[in-house]
Amino acid sequence: MTAASHRTAPEHTHPDAVPVLTALAALADPVRLTLVRELASSPEWSRACGSFDVPVGKAALSHHFAVLRGAGLVEQRDQGPKRVNRLRRAEFDARFPGLLELVLRPDRCD
Amino acid sequence: MTAASHRTAPEHTHPDAVPVLTALAALADPVRLTLVRELASSPEWSRACGSFDVPVGKAALSHHFAVLRGAGLVEQRDQGPKRVNRLRRAEFDARFPGLLELVLRPDRCD
Repeated sequence: MTAASHRTAPEHTHPDAVPVLTALAALADPVRLTLVRELASSPEWSRACGSFDVPVGKAALSHHFAVLRGAGLVEQRDQGPKRVNRLRRAEFDARFPGLLELVLRPDRCD
Repeated sequence: MTAASHRTAPEHTHPDAVPVLTALAALADPVRLTLVRELASSPEWSRACGSFDVPVGKAALSHHFAVLRGAGLVEQRDQGPKRVNRLRRAEFDARFPGLLELVLRPDRCD
């Protein structure tokens, strides 16, 4: 039995099954936008959930990650005591071409 | 004095001044998505605010149009007793390339 075996494995939704409204709602939040941007600039699976610079508590952060998984934006897996993340960039791009590019580009109005 | 002269003219925001988060939040709502889609399939200035097939009251509808104006998506003007609308498609496309196309395409997951 590993340290993480009592945790429920995260549920994922593939971007192909995500309505456009769900994708937009997932990205239309400043905390989630920060998570997505930080993930985009990090190697895959290099970031644990607690490593992001966002001003929210553990429960809220967990909710935000659930929304990102449900929108097909983030994949998670347990690695020992840590839950690590990757941005599903290629799959999400294939489903919603250009959307990630829009939110990842430096924005003069942000 | 015209019938509409006592109304406050609607305030608009040009898409060039809109943060990406504001644009996403404006589109991440089923009622507003319906308004945008119906406007996209109608000639400019042909649709009065009351002509849309959305299940909301007058005050809520007014709020949704204010959000769309504030995101640079919709332009309105008073025409006699009616307030008519157009989608700011070219300007919005220039600011957020591909975003309107994503929400306007028929979606297999919707």
